[in-house]
Amino acid sequence: MNLARILKTPLPIVSTKLLFCRALHVPLTASRLPHLHRKSFAKVTNDDIKQFEGILSSSRVLCAEEDIAGHCTDWTRVFRGTGSIVLKPKTTAEVSEILKYCNNRNLAVVPQGGLTGLVGGSVPVFDEVIISLSLMNKIIKIEPLAGVLVCQAGCVLQRLNDAVAEHGMTMPLDLGAKGACQIGGNVSTNAGGIRFLRYGSLHASVLGLEAVMADGSVVDNLSTLRKDNTGYDVKQLFIGSEGTLGIVTSVTIATPPKPKAITVCFVGCRSFADALKTYASAKASLGEILSACEFMDNDSMSLVKKNLGLVNPLGESYPFYVLLETSGSDGSHDEDKVTKFVEAGSSFENGTLTSEPSKIKNIWSLRENIAVALLRDGVQHKFDISVPVECMYDLVEIMRKRVHGLGAVSCVGYGHLGDGNLHLNITSRERIEELDNAIVPFVYEWTAQRKGSISAEHGLGVQKSQYIHFSKTPPAIALMRSIKSTLDPKGILNPYKVLPIE
Amino acid sequence: MNLARILKTPLPIVSTKLLFCRALHVPLTASRLPHLHRKSFAKVTNDDIKQFEGILSSSRVLCAEEDIAGHCTDWTRVFRGTGSIVLKPKTTAEVSEILKYCNNRNLAVVPQGGLTGLVGGSVPVFDEVIISLSLMNKIIKIEPLAGVLVCQAGCVLQRLNDAVAEHGMTMPLDLGAKGACQIGGNVSTNAGGIRFLRYGSLHASVLGLEAVMADGSVVDNLSTLRKDNTGYDVKQLFIGSEGTLGIVTSVTIATPPKPKAITVCFVGCRSFADALKTYASAKASLGEILSACEFMDNDSMSLVKKNLGLVNPLGESYPFYVLLETSGSDGSHDEDKVTKFVEAGSSFENGTLTSEPSKIKNIWSLRENIAVALLRDGVQHKFDISVPVECMYDLVEIMRKRVHGLGAVSCVGYGHLGDGNLHLNITSRERIEELDNAIVPFVYEWTAQRKGSISAEHGLGVQKSQYIHFSKTPPAIALMRSIKSTLDPKGILNPYKVLPIE
Repeated sequence: MNLARILKTPLPIVSTKLLFCRALHVPLTASRLPHLHRKSFAKVTNDDIKQFEGILSSSRVLCAEEDIAGHCTDWTRVFRGTGSIVLKPKTTAEVSEILKYCNNRNLAVVPQGGLTGLVGGSVPVFDEVIISLSLMNKIIKIEPLAGVLVCQAGCVLQRLNDAVAEHGMTMPLDLGAKGACQIGGNVSTNAGGIRFLRYGSLHASVLGLEAVMADGSVVDNLSTLRKDNTGYDVKQLFIGSEGTLGIVTSVTIATPPKPKAITVCFVGCRSFADALKTYASAKASLGEILSACEFMDNDSMSLVKKNLGLVNPLGESYPFYVLLETSGSDGSHDEDKVTKFVEAGSSFENGTLTSEPSKIKNIWSLRENIAVALLRDGVQHKFDISVPVECMYDLVEIMRKRVHGLGAVSCVGYGHLGDGNLHLNITSRERIEELDNAIVPFVYEWTAQRKGSISAEHGLGVQKSQYIHFSKTPPAIALMRSIKSTLDPKGILNPYKVLPIE
Repeated sequence: MNLARILKTPLPIVSTKLLFCRALHVPLTASRLPHLHRKSFAKVTNDDIKQFEGILSSSRVLCAEEDIAGHCTDWTRVFRGTGSIVLKPKTTAEVSEILKYCNNRNLAVVPQGGLTGLVGGSVPVFDEVIISLSLMNKIIKIEPLAGVLVCQAGCVLQRLNDAVAEHGMTMPLDLGAKGACQIGGNVSTNAGGIRFLRYGSLHASVLGLEAVMADGSVVDNLSTLRKDNTGYDVKQLFIGSEGTLGIVTSVTIATPPKPKAITVCFVGCRSFADALKTYASAKASLGEILSACEFMDNDSMSLVKKNLGLVNPLGESYPFYVLLETSGSDGSHDEDKVTKFVEAGSSFENGTLTSEPSKIKNIWSLRENIAVALLRDGVQHKFDISVPVECMYDLVEIMRKRVHGLGAVSCVGYGHLGDGNLHLNITSRERIEELDNAIVPFVYEWTAQRKGSISAEHGLGVQKSQYIHFSKTPPAIALMRSIKSTLDPKGILNPYKVLPIE
């Protein structure tokens, strides 16, 4: 083993924006997914535009094609709608007025955050009115003693993390898209990410929430209390419902103390079984300081090397890589625990260990930029499944065989080992029907057979809504439908998403 | 400071059951709370009894007065109903058949767990059919690698903790009533307890859940996956809704690794401000190993000494006591952290420190038995509020002055310092109207003025349902009502609880 080898060459930081320029024709979502038909919503008229300008001011009502285009296509370049208007409210009262108006007029809407979603949830399918939350970006309150942050939905995650860090705290979630994703979108999609292992689900970290319902009424549950059992916890409904039950306008998030020491350990393993052993032994040795346990296969490593020029810090290749992160309150104790873990490690072949921030960032950038590197290939087939961790990687191997000779460019697997959450990605230069058919519904069927989730953290959006039955029973789906029709009787909120079209 | 003084005398273990024999007349809830009127549900007939016997077998349908009495009165001896039948299903299918029948017949039901609730949520108000889950006590599965437990709702918390401990894991919740409370009740009331600080809310720890709806349909969401974002997270609706939206029949709980080392530190402070400083410094020094931070005032200490014969391990009295617990994966690191914390401690006067299990149990029994000791006084006024932690104890001091001369026996404050959660308890030998009027609604008004919760962890039950508006806005309450009428159109599930009577 080559322990504690320190990275010498800083890895390039990759900007997602640079990759947007790739010219790839994005077909309309509705033309690609034949089950989608425009529902009988009203169409936006000149009079509607005047009304919106009255609510917002004309500078925050966008109708010019060049202003709209970027709001109609998702960043994976798989989903595109024909929206003709973007509204940019700054306050909850404005969101309330917009929704009240749209509900009366029977105009469908799509709430939009940082546009970093992966299932087409935040772009229009047809001509839904786009409500961008990006100007609702105020930090309302930071309370260090209580350990809470209160802010508007449009705040970018990275900015929030920087802001609470100044008060000795950290955000309980972190993900590759942190530089662009907005907290309202994170909450609306119940984002998981790389700190899930340590700080758990947003269903616990979101202490309070304000949302505007379809009819414009405001549910103000923006509490800063850690505990509150007065009645049904209605805020839970808005966490992960992808804007189909209400638009999240502000949130209170529990912010844990910022760790005093962070260490990252990146190791190479000969097999997935060894990667699992590495996780089990990390869990046992590192206990409460283990804050992330990610894995990537060698195809993922080759991809970030080839498409983005990143460097494998281990020099040579291994079939699997595991990235372990510890966060603790005493650097010397943590170092001691990590050293014991590394010394006892018989499940990995080689490794590098660092506690230097820039080097930590470089190692993380390998894992975080796989999705960006995949974009360079072209057409994306993205999967985000959870199954019992023992059989997690089997799917990648099965799919490699299955798509062989059908025009796939990459077929890679990576993800959150500690959460049993695999990101399987298959790409091709252009859309190939035979390849599509080999992938879906096979991946979902395989997952359902193992009682897994066909969307561990990305949500269903428009991409997976028709496949919900692979992970949920008919009574559960019926219950979801009755909640949807109770909260949004006209169905104006983000239609065609989450629930399957009947 | 008297550091690391080890407890020499084991404290007596107090059984809750012994205290039940106290003869105190418990008035009918409905006679005491004038807003309650029996709704037009059907009454149980002999034919109904035969039908229930057909579903269950006659041995699990109890109708004799002596079999019923204990199911009609709550353990705090504040709430009593006139139920005439107790059903004891063993399977989800049986619960489903019972509810289908009751819904068709318009018979109201009250689901019942370990009967350890504090707001009268689990006993009938009038003649509701009592459905006791106590025979649904099977452990279905324990998976150490994934860190999950799957079990039926009637399993007692202590038994579950013992069972997962054999596999190197621990339950993410712990509370004084652990020897009797059932996990279904814990989930249905979103129980907090003493490990909340470390493992957080059940909204995150409950990974899966099976519930039977009012019409008998079964929502099977008994997943063992850590992450699943396929559609609305409907299981959240059943967490904390106190059996008013469905009956929880089985659950999957995330079970963290059992800590290898536990230390308890019990210190005496001169003021509440010093108790708060002790918490802040513990949070800073002990970081990720801090697993509980509880406080009790000297009146609470006097009460457990006087009523239960427990012993103050510090010898002399202090105005406030703070109990700190650490749980970690390396005993020597933890000891080092705790020692540094104690050495730096200028906010407490005296303290004792132990890592011996029997002594840890003795110290915890002081804190955990305050509620039991209060029972000996007689009539209970129990409050469970959360407010900004800085002003938490003000309420106890205000109430002491306010009830002076009105016949109160005890007026004590204790609770979860780390969660800003105060348990205020006032007792009297018998019910005194003037005392009652001095307490309610004053306590709720005071809490509402500080944007607090009038029920941090106990729920609303029948006791606090009329006061929900002190903590929730009209649109939020309207949303709860619409959810209730969607899921339980006839309102047969645990009526008169949680939502206010209109």
